[in-house]
Amino acid sequence: MRLSDMIEEMARNAREASRQLRKMGRDQKDNVLRLMADKLLKHQDEIVEENRKDLPLAREMGLSPAMIDRLTLNPSVIADMAGGLREVADLPDPVGEVTGMWKRPNGLQVGRVRIPLGVIGFIYESRPNVTVDAAGLCLKSGNAVILKGGSEAIQSNIILGRLLGEALRETGMPEKAIQVVPTTNREAVGILIGLDNWIDVIIPRGGEGLIRFVAEHSRIPVLKHYKGVCHIYVDNSAPLEMAEEICFNAKVQRPGVCNAMETLLVHEAVAPRFLPNMAKRFQDSGVELRGCPRTLALVPGIRAAGEADWPAEFLDLILAVKVVSDMDEALDHIEKYGSRHTEAIITSDYDRSQRFLTEVDSSVVLVNASTRFNDGNQLGLGAEIGINTSKLHAFGPMGLEELTTTKFIVYGQGQTRK
Amino acid sequence: MRLSDMIEEMARNAREASRQLRKMGRDQKDNVLRLMADKLLKHQDEIVEENRKDLPLAREMGLSPAMIDRLTLNPSVIADMAGGLREVADLPDPVGEVTGMWKRPNGLQVGRVRIPLGVIGFIYESRPNVTVDAAGLCLKSGNAVILKGGSEAIQSNIILGRLLGEALRETGMPEKAIQVVPTTNREAVGILIGLDNWIDVIIPRGGEGLIRFVAEHSRIPVLKHYKGVCHIYVDNSAPLEMAEEICFNAKVQRPGVCNAMETLLVHEAVAPRFLPNMAKRFQDSGVELRGCPRTLALVPGIRAAGEADWPAEFLDLILAVKVVSDMDEALDHIEKYGSRHTEAIITSDYDRSQRFLTEVDSSVVLVNASTRFNDGNQLGLGAEIGINTSKLHAFGPMGLEELTTTKFIVYGQGQTRK
Repeated sequence: MRLSDMIEEMARNAREASRQLRKMGRDQKDNVLRLMADKLLKHQDEIVEENRKDLPLAREMGLSPAMIDRLTLNPSVIADMAGGLREVADLPDPVGEVTGMWKRPNGLQVGRVRIPLGVIGFIYESRPNVTVDAAGLCLKSGNAVILKGGSEAIQSNIILGRLLGEALRETGMPEKAIQVVPTTNREAVGILIGLDNWIDVIIPRGGEGLIRFVAEHSRIPVLKHYKGVCHIYVDNSAPLEMAEEICFNAKVQRPGVCNAMETLLVHEAVAPRFLPNMAKRFQDSGVELRGCPRTLALVPGIRAAGEADWPAEFLDLILAVKVVSDMDEALDHIEKYGSRHTEAIITSDYDRSQRFLTEVDSSVVLVNASTRFNDGNQLGLGAEIGINTSKLHAFGPMGLEELTTTKFIVYGQGQTRK
Repeated sequence: MRLSDMIEEMARNAREASRQLRKMGRDQKDNVLRLMADKLLKHQDEIVEENRKDLPLAREMGLSPAMIDRLTLNPSVIADMAGGLREVADLPDPVGEVTGMWKRPNGLQVGRVRIPLGVIGFIYESRPNVTVDAAGLCLKSGNAVILKGGSEAIQSNIILGRLLGEALRETGMPEKAIQVVPTTNREAVGILIGLDNWIDVIIPRGGEGLIRFVAEHSRIPVLKHYKGVCHIYVDNSAPLEMAEEICFNAKVQRPGVCNAMETLLVHEAVAPRFLPNMAKRFQDSGVELRGCPRTLALVPGIRAAGEADWPAEFLDLILAVKVVSDMDEALDHIEKYGSRHTEAIITSDYDRSQRFLTEVDSSVVLVNASTRFNDGNQLGLGAEIGINTSKLHAFGPMGLEELTTTKFIVYGQGQTRK
């Protein structure tokens, strides 16, 4: 069978499965999620064995040891995946919630009810546990999903998909609700994102190259974020000890993630007191600083920041630092170089905090807290399938609710339009 | 100046204006909307004069008399446009609403607040009153808008855009919040939908060809609907008199719109009692019926429906009619041929009504009411900028709230991530 025929058949089957899923109640979905968890644990030897087949190829492909580590499945990682499925089973079901209902003058009762999106195409790289996480979240929210993982994890993804499908079949759920694309052929991505008759949403997760390719070529709406160039602005009214703790946490606690701070903006009135200590603490932890001219004057010996450093997502122990004359300059800088992902202000001034919350156009805006809190679990969404930095549908972290939409339901008694 | 440079400059200016709009309160927005209404009335002679320049070109382009009628501005149409702006001013402001706020175990207070989408690219055909309606809705919801209308209305759109811009300037609002693309060059559309650095959403309104072109080529998310192939299913439990009134209304009251009924599905148990009368009433009003074989047996002399009639959006006094053996067959038919726009069931059976509401995957699903109610005003949204039949962001009619998104705001006291 030709690749395009195979993918289209998968998409048709997913659409049919999504029709069945509309009718499924919470108990049915939670039961199958728990059975999936059991199956992963019961078949862990088999999973590890299939995963071992992926590792030589991954080494051949030149993946770094850190990436190979993230690719490797062992009993502890498998237990985490199973635990994740059970946690999703415990979360409330977003489907069926009536988000509002009102009566019209002509007696029509109009409501909005939460429904699944339908069929989701999930395109991702590397870690096979994403296969299980994404499948669980999509199923709980009533969506069918087609999973296209990276070629470096193909055998792992196939065995995981097979086990999840078994659980669906054994509980009388539509088996095609979760399907793994069983090929390493990269053309599969291009085919998938063209099937707008069958697929409702594409969610890509991975490097900026993959995401740009998907966003530019997809005929299906895409939920995505390119990068997180997160800023913290330390105001002249900031409690400096708090500012130091938050900035340190935002940069150092996990520098390789999208909600880590990449640029620090400091009000000139506190820069002389704040920056030298802060810089020392960063440098002691191996952070390379790249400063504007005024920063260089306060922290001698660090590298000068170039124009390319301001919009950069370092994802590493590197930080761009700029001294600003006032809050306006900080806001202008964020507007110009930010990625609309996450920004924070450290301040003790009420008006400044309100102004920052209103004027900064990012998916998460914080006062006196670390940028690292932009995360579905941390913000209380219960789970996270990704972060969206385009404004449509769901701006910011996406949990179960963001995998649904609403439709209007109308109860009438014979009304006609005048 | 090259066309692409001009459009890009408009988009940059719109982005800058949208930054100013974030800070505007309800009073400022409502005042300018009311001033706009005053200006339209005060300058109505000038508007009519510019509109007259468009009409000869429209005739040359071969537009039908009905379309030329819709293009023509006179004092009564201008008064309606002004009235529309005043109505939008009277609607509540969606921006700033906190849709939820909760406390995390670590003390973080997390909220979601409604914000404008940013910059909207609005691409449409024909009627110049859409220019004013769309501009008013975008402004009220805090968005900057770039309006690309049809070449047949270019002079009308330019004068309307100039008057709206004057009102913005005179009230100290950013003048570039509303911009009309001042050219009939069709390449402007292709350029506009590529500017994903500056524009957040594209909303096309017009024929299916325009919408497909935009959806296929846009690098910016698109809110659109292709067509409305709306069904009514008359159940065997339907009160037949009510069914007749609703079906007649849904087809005949205004056949040229997207929420008119295009296919009637009738349960076989009531078809012999229902269809002959219904058919006569339709035929007396000039409706051409196209029936399945079982319909033909009950209503002799009508045309047989071909395969192309089931997915057709006639937008005319034509109706496809099919007799179904049961509700499952009706649901299958809707799933296969429907456009996810609007479907209604006529029934007195409780379980059937619930099942139809749950299983039909359309933006508006009605029980015992006309499909013609799929309209933002009729459903109580206060206004409507369009209907979206893709699932993302807003499924169904879009009012002011649907021109916004939410961001997360977080109030902390020094929290860092563990």
